[in-house]
Amino acid sequence: MPPATNLLSLISCFQSEFIAECFMRRAYLTGFTGSAGTAVVTKNKAALWTDGRYFLQAEKELSHDWTLMRSGSHGVPTTSEWLNDVLPSGCRVGIDPFLFSFDAAEELKDDISDKNHELVLIRDLNLVDEIWGESRPEPPKEQTRVHGIKYAGVDVPSKLSFVRSHLTENGCDAVVISLLDEVAWLLNMRGSDVPNSPVFYSYLIVENNTATLFVDNNKVSKDVLAHLEKAGVNLKPYEAILSNVERLAENGAKLWLDSSSINAAIAHVFRSSCDRYVKKRGKTDRQIGKESSSDKPTTRSSGIQNGTLNALYKASPVTLAKAVKNDAEIEGMKSSHLRDAAALAEFWCWLEGEIDKSVSLTEVQVAEKLLEFRQKQDGFTDTSFDTISGYGANGAIIHYRPTPQSCSFVKSDNLFLLDSGAQYIDGTTDITRTVHFGEPSPRQKECFTRVLQGHIALDQAVFPERTPGFVLDVLARSSLWKIGLDYRHGTGHGVGAALNVHEGPQSISYRYGNLTALQKGMIVSNEPGYYEDNSFGIRIENLLLVKEVNLPNSFGGVSYLGFEKLTFVPIQSKLMSLSLLSPSEINWINEYHEEVWEKVSPLLNGHSRDWLWKNTRPL
Amino acid sequence: MPPATNLLSLISCFQSEFIAECFMRRAYLTGFTGSAGTAVVTKNKAALWTDGRYFLQAEKELSHDWTLMRSGSHGVPTTSEWLNDVLPSGCRVGIDPFLFSFDAAEELKDDISDKNHELVLIRDLNLVDEIWGESRPEPPKEQTRVHGIKYAGVDVPSKLSFVRSHLTENGCDAVVISLLDEVAWLLNMRGSDVPNSPVFYSYLIVENNTATLFVDNNKVSKDVLAHLEKAGVNLKPYEAILSNVERLAENGAKLWLDSSSINAAIAHVFRSSCDRYVKKRGKTDRQIGKESSSDKPTTRSSGIQNGTLNALYKASPVTLAKAVKNDAEIEGMKSSHLRDAAALAEFWCWLEGEIDKSVSLTEVQVAEKLLEFRQKQDGFTDTSFDTISGYGANGAIIHYRPTPQSCSFVKSDNLFLLDSGAQYIDGTTDITRTVHFGEPSPRQKECFTRVLQGHIALDQAVFPERTPGFVLDVLARSSLWKIGLDYRHGTGHGVGAALNVHEGPQSISYRYGNLTALQKGMIVSNEPGYYEDNSFGIRIENLLLVKEVNLPNSFGGVSYLGFEKLTFVPIQSKLMSLSLLSPSEINWINEYHEEVWEKVSPLLNGHSRDWLWKNTRPL
Repeated sequence: MPPATNLLSLISCFQSEFIAECFMRRAYLTGFTGSAGTAVVTKNKAALWTDGRYFLQAEKELSHDWTLMRSGSHGVPTTSEWLNDVLPSGCRVGIDPFLFSFDAAEELKDDISDKNHELVLIRDLNLVDEIWGESRPEPPKEQTRVHGIKYAGVDVPSKLSFVRSHLTENGCDAVVISLLDEVAWLLNMRGSDVPNSPVFYSYLIVENNTATLFVDNNKVSKDVLAHLEKAGVNLKPYEAILSNVERLAENGAKLWLDSSSINAAIAHVFRSSCDRYVKKRGKTDRQIGKESSSDKPTTRSSGIQNGTLNALYKASPVTLAKAVKNDAEIEGMKSSHLRDAAALAEFWCWLEGEIDKSVSLTEVQVAEKLLEFRQKQDGFTDTSFDTISGYGANGAIIHYRPTPQSCSFVKSDNLFLLDSGAQYIDGTTDITRTVHFGEPSPRQKECFTRVLQGHIALDQAVFPERTPGFVLDVLARSSLWKIGLDYRHGTGHGVGAALNVHEGPQSISYRYGNLTALQKGMIVSNEPGYYEDNSFGIRIENLLLVKEVNLPNSFGGVSYLGFEKLTFVPIQSKLMSLSLLSPSEINWINEYHEEVWEKVSPLLNGHSRDWLWKNTRPL
Repeated sequence: MPPATNLLSLISCFQSEFIAECFMRRAYLTGFTGSAGTAVVTKNKAALWTDGRYFLQAEKELSHDWTLMRSGSHGVPTTSEWLNDVLPSGCRVGIDPFLFSFDAAEELKDDISDKNHELVLIRDLNLVDEIWGESRPEPPKEQTRVHGIKYAGVDVPSKLSFVRSHLTENGCDAVVISLLDEVAWLLNMRGSDVPNSPVFYSYLIVENNTATLFVDNNKVSKDVLAHLEKAGVNLKPYEAILSNVERLAENGAKLWLDSSSINAAIAHVFRSSCDRYVKKRGKTDRQIGKESSSDKPTTRSSGIQNGTLNALYKASPVTLAKAVKNDAEIEGMKSSHLRDAAALAEFWCWLEGEIDKSVSLTEVQVAEKLLEFRQKQDGFTDTSFDTISGYGANGAIIHYRPTPQSCSFVKSDNLFLLDSGAQYIDGTTDITRTVHFGEPSPRQKECFTRVLQGHIALDQAVFPERTPGFVLDVLARSSLWKIGLDYRHGTGHGVGAALNVHEGPQSISYRYGNLTALQKGMIVSNEPGYYEDNSFGIRIENLLLVKEVNLPNSFGGVSYLGFEKLTFVPIQSKLMSLSLLSPSEINWINEYHEEVWEKVSPLLNGHSRDWLWKNTRPL
């Protein structure tokens, strides 16, 4: 799956890429079902912002009551510019502070203050829910489960110790973890509250001697409860998070908050509670006529003018730890990728057969059949994102999602792009293959081959430690650049181990902002592409594990890193223009296919095995 | 010549890489002659800071009175950290403000204010000159010359108009140009005040209707005077710069200063004059009982608290214009590179002959002979930097400079690295070749071949406009990285047209800080290398012109850029390991050598022509 064009906009609802139905308030209110968008309603106007991926869809789905704001297009204002324009000076603008990160809320507050508007955090009710009323779907009540140590590799007490050592190092007393995948990773738990991601709605507060999970009690089975008790984790109701943050403020605790992910409600409750606490303490101190002298926690909070001083705004200590996979996680990723590869071999064998028999299949039917093959595999739990099944021109829509009402048939006179992934108990997969069931044009072959050359160049890269991903991005593009082609998405994103299919902090992108170094144990996708509007789309995607490579030299005394493939599914050789490929590229393809055969054939039999044999022969 | 490790430190004297002897005060005072260093003297201590390139040299050259500070080594303080450490609180630290950029002086001032030290700008005398006395060399009195329109391409009035349009756009009344190459470029003049760079000591003030060159009158011949008069440029003595900056302040002019290059003396005079002027005006206004109302210049200076408000600190408008070469400059660069190539062919032919005859030659003698061959070429004026002639282990010292007293003989049992360049009337060259006169080891061949592969990959790069140079740097390194090797310098620097051999703003480097896009008409070096300490050094350097490439596609509607080679000198095929090279790399080498033969053979005859023929045969 291509890296999110703008991860922030994707996570604007609950700071998660995927959300439960009861939280799909924008879709309910506006009718627009795309994954990224912001709705703004004033007393007499209503406007919806979305990005280039969704302009067409939004045009179809929005009623005439809504103005579509095409973000990024020339002359289109941002939400705050628009508010500053349409509202008379000095208005009050309300948001649900649980749906905005602290950073996003602060930015909005700043921006609208230009016209003296005030940002109001409406904490006690959600205006859309008031309208939705009884017909609003129930919040998910799925059971959580323990993510066994066999897959997690490290037990919860060790992970909590790790977090606590970071607390100590940073002079903090507690951290609030609000990213759902961070809670799941830290507690070795998984859930089913959200499609595609095995997470559950919750918060976690880790203090030096305690840890508290805020979650709906009904989601916690006896097994899970025992697992949490053993790790010294207390349970509290999901709704109790704010009162507990208040308590931390009152105790003078210094709190670690990741301002890019923590919601504005929590950050503001902490800040205002600190203010109240300081005022009260000041009064008490004066009343009893003494200076603050006790060592703790007074020392820490003395001198506080407002809560900001008692909070450390810093990236969560969990983000990097979760990205660097341990041996058990790597083992699970490898194993689940082989089962996934077997399902894909069966699927491609089946699909080729159907096309040969001239059976009419839609993009949606094809995706459903793929799901069937995956469901048969051990440990399958879910898809890892909505399958991008795009035939012909649909393949050129980077985040295309076919619907039964409007999708195309998959035929044999154009390219078919299939980007899909699965959640298994032990791993998460994400793979794209592009195929042609008939005769590809020379143009399609040239474009495919250049995308493949980029894929191979990145796959083979070796680089010194401390290299950020963006340094390698050019390797995936330079073959396309040589004929004036390019693609408008990043080349690689991080992937969780039995967790989110899009995971930070690393990435491989043409944007230079992300300075996170690629590190041994990280997983990234390798997915260059090329998209010819209204014609066809090409993408070739494997997941890669960053590993240390053993080299004859080690200049500068540093480690050198490279990639190990996790994905083992044939790449269609019919689409390769052999005259463009160098001997070393041909070698790469042959070696890859040999490895595919060796690793995946033991999991197959009959036609699928024959199909794999045929599709892994040397060029 | 490799990109400067730290351009700022190289230009700390007079903001120029090369300086006249009379300004080599640090060398006079300390004995250390390296190109980068800072001397600090207190009442009872004396210390000299230099970087890794010069540790050995400094150890040899410094007397025991001096403490050597190895910049960048573990635990070594910066100059200001040291001052804060050794001086009692509240001292006065003096600098010559003509030798510090405004930025550097401000940074120093800030840093030492931690211990309440005051930075004192000693404007009226230089303490070292006081000691140097009568034996100080005379300032250079070389004549300047007109850089003909045939080479400059654009006349001075057009260049001044360009600067003035930038003044207007930025609401400024004047700009002070203090970088010597910017003055030379803007006025189509050249000089000989400084070794290796055809510049002359001067300042230029461009105002909306006038332009004034501050230069020693003796340097201006009748021709030059007529040239300047025709362009409407006035002459004033070099020393008059400060009083003229004062005058600008008094007139309320808004002044454009490039704070990274303008010296602290000028910036401070402007600031203090503005302060004085505002105070005086305030008084006068009150005395005559009126508000400021006249349109100009009062409007601009009303509200000024101090001079900072009336200055625009921004990169000089000349920097980018100078980097993007016009057709005449490109023509001159191409033509001078062919003559330079002819000189090099003659030189290599001669050197091979001498080695064959077992003549003993030192690195210095070889460099001197190369100079002789170049001097015979039309339009030769100077070297463009001190030749780096490094045999064996000396080749591993990146900025090696052999001296007659200590240099090695050039023999046939190790690699010989020769990095050199020339100034011609129409262009500037910079080329490195590495050769072996005997039998290279397999190790040397592998390293050389991988450096060459990096050179070829960068040479062949095609990339969309707006790509900064650092994006391409990985192309030059990835072949070395594959066996765990690397080099500790950037891959490319900008080069002036008959100007400085190191020129900004573009670069190709592993450092991500320089976001300047490579643009059509810019010139960069392509010089990957590999250095095995105490053993040998390899570098292969050509200069490249950035040009638009004609491609079958233009994705995103943008231009695609690539490189055109300017340097045409054979690369020694004996050092290439053919089994490592791909067919397309072999093709590149053969095509390059064919082009070398076609372009350079007409300029040669006899043995040199034979040598060129032999050394340009296909692999």
